[in-house]
Amino acid sequence: MSETVFAIGVDWGTSSFRAYRLAGNGDVLEGRRAEAGILAIDDDGFEDAFEELIGDWLDADPGIPVVLGGMIGSRQGWVETPYLACPASVDDIAHGLVPLTLERGRIVHVAPGLSARGADGVPDVMRGEEVQILGAVDLLGAGSATVCLPGTHSKWARVEDRRVTGFSTHMTGEVFDVIRRHSILGKGIEHAAWDDAAFLAGVARSGEEGGLLHHLFGVRAAGLFGELVPDSAGAFLSGLVIGHEIREAAPGEIVHLIGDEQLVDLYLRALEALGHEAVAAPRQAAACGLFLIAAGLCGGADG
Amino acid sequence: MSETVFAIGVDWGTSSFRAYRLAGNGDVLEGRRAEAGILAIDDDGFEDAFEELIGDWLDADPGIPVVLGGMIGSRQGWVETPYLACPASVDDIAHGLVPLTLERGRIVHVAPGLSARGADGVPDVMRGEEVQILGAVDLLGAGSATVCLPGTHSKWARVEDRRVTGFSTHMTGEVFDVIRRHSILGKGIEHAAWDDAAFLAGVARSGEEGGLLHHLFGVRAAGLFGELVPDSAGAFLSGLVIGHEIREAAPGEIVHLIGDEQLVDLYLRALEALGHEAVAAPRQAAACGLFLIAAGLCGGADG
Repeated sequence: MSETVFAIGVDWGTSSFRAYRLAGNGDVLEGRRAEAGILAIDDDGFEDAFEELIGDWLDADPGIPVVLGGMIGSRQGWVETPYLACPASVDDIAHGLVPLTLERGRIVHVAPGLSARGADGVPDVMRGEEVQILGAVDLLGAGSATVCLPGTHSKWARVEDRRVTGFSTHMTGEVFDVIRRHSILGKGIEHAAWDDAAFLAGVARSGEEGGLLHHLFGVRAAGLFGELVPDSAGAFLSGLVIGHEIREAAPGEIVHLIGDEQLVDLYLRALEALGHEAVAAPRQAAACGLFLIAAGLCGGADG
Repeated sequence: MSETVFAIGVDWGTSSFRAYRLAGNGDVLEGRRAEAGILAIDDDGFEDAFEELIGDWLDADPGIPVVLGGMIGSRQGWVETPYLACPASVDDIAHGLVPLTLERGRIVHVAPGLSARGADGVPDVMRGEEVQILGAVDLLGAGSATVCLPGTHSKWARVEDRRVTGFSTHMTGEVFDVIRRHSILGKGIEHAAWDDAAFLAGVARSGEEGGLLHHLFGVRAAGLFGELVPDSAGAFLSGLVIGHEIREAAPGEIVHLIGDEQLVDLYLRALEALGHEAVAAPRQAAACGLFLIAAGLCGGADG
C-alpha cells in the first residue's frame, strides 16, 4: 500500500508547471512537470489544463489540501491574488490563500505574492519565489538567511525568524537578453559560445569606474579593437551585468542560491570572485514551501 | 560677388549628412542637409551619393580642401580610418586625415576617430563627436572644458589646452530604447506620452540604493501598484537612465552640452536637478571643427 498523501502542491510559473504529491512529513512522494506555464495557456483555459495535468491526483485523494503558488496568482493567471506586505511568514501566506472552487466542486487555494518597499518607498514584488525562499530556509534548518534566486528578474531576499523581511528585484537576466538581442552589442556576440575567463573579466570590470551604461559600451569598443572576440563577448556581458547585480545586492554574509543549476553555478563563481561566501540551497525548496503552506492552512501537518 | 569659399566640411553620420561651405574666417556661407546617413547607403554607393549631394560645390571650387568627419570613416562607411589615441588636438586630427581620390580626380580627406582608455585599460572610441567637441571649445573661446553629447551613445569628453585628453561613452539612449521596446517594461509605457515631473522623479530615483538593474524593475512594480501610470512611465524611465549616466560621468565643473535641442534641454534639467552647472554649447560646433581641421590641413586659414 502506498504512503498517504497529505497535500498536493503546485508551482505554476510563467514558463513551467510543477506539481508534487506531498507526505505528512513533507517528503515528495511523486513529482510531475510540464512545459505548461501560464503564458502557454489561454485566459479561460486554466481549469481544463489543471484537470488534464493532475486531475487523476485530485480523483485519488478527494479530501486533501491543494495549494498553488507562482504566477498563476497574477493578473495574467487563473485568479489574481493580492500581494502581502513584508514581513511575511508561511502562516501569513496560508492566511492569505485565495480559495477557488473547481467545476467538480473541489476547493483549491492560490497563494498571494509578496511586496516590499525600498527606503525611498518604491515598491517591489514577487510571486512564487517566496514559496521557494521559505522552503529553502526551512530545509536549511535555519530561521534566518540571505537567499538569491538568479534569473530573468533576480530576487534577493532576507529571511529573519522564518519571515521574509525584505527583498529586491534586479532585471539582470532580461537586460542581458534584450541588450544582446536588440542592441548594437549583439553584432559582436557569438551567441552559442561561452568563455569562463571572459565571464570573470566581466565580473571584475563591473567594479571599475563609469557605471553599467559605460561598461556596456566598452563591450563594443573592445570588440572594435579586437580585444574582445565574439566567442567571448557574450560571457563577458553576462559577467558584467551579474557583477553589477551582486555589487549592489549582496550583503556581507553567506548567500543561499536557488535556481537552475547552470545559473546557480555562474553566480557561485561570480560571488566567490567578489569575495562573498555562497552555497547552492537544498533542492526541493518549492515543494517544501508548498508543504509548509498547506500545513499552515490545515493548522499544522500530521507528521 | 559672393564671398570666397575656403573649404568644404562634411559631417556624415549614421543617420544624416550635413555639409558646409566655409569662409576663411570659419563662417558658414552655406549649409546643406540630407537624410542620407551611412546606414541608408550601399557599401559601393558612397561616391555616387557624395557627387549627388555636393557635386555642384566640388565643381564650383576645384582647388579648396574637402574634409569629411563622422561615421563615414568607420568600417561601415566609405573608407575606414584609424582611431587616434587621446590626447588629440585639431592638428593631430589634420595630420591623421586619410586622403581619398574621387573618380573625377579630386582628393578629399576623411577624418580619423579618437580612442581613449579607462583606468582599467578598456578602450573607448568616438567618430565625429571629436569634431564637434573641438569646434565647440574653440567657439567658447576657451582652451579647456567638459563637453557632453547626449544621445544613443552619450559622450563625455574632457578638453585641456585645446586637446581632447579623455572621454567616456554611455549607452544611455540605446539602453532606454531597447528596454522600452523589448523588455517587459514596455507593456506599462504609453510611448507617445511625456511627463516632466515623472522625468525628474526618475532622475532622483537614480541615486537611491539598489543600482540601475534594480531601479528598472521598480518601473514595473510601481506600475502594478498604480503608482506609475503608463503616461508617466516612459519619462520616468528616461530620467532614471539619464540620472545614472550623469551621476557616473558628470565632473564638478560646468558641462557644455551639444546636440538635439530637446535632448539638450532634458540634460540641462537633469544636471540642474543633480546640482550641476550646465549650458548649451554654441551652435555650429561641427562646422567650426571641420573648418579648424581644414585649416590645419592647409597649415592655417587665410582669415
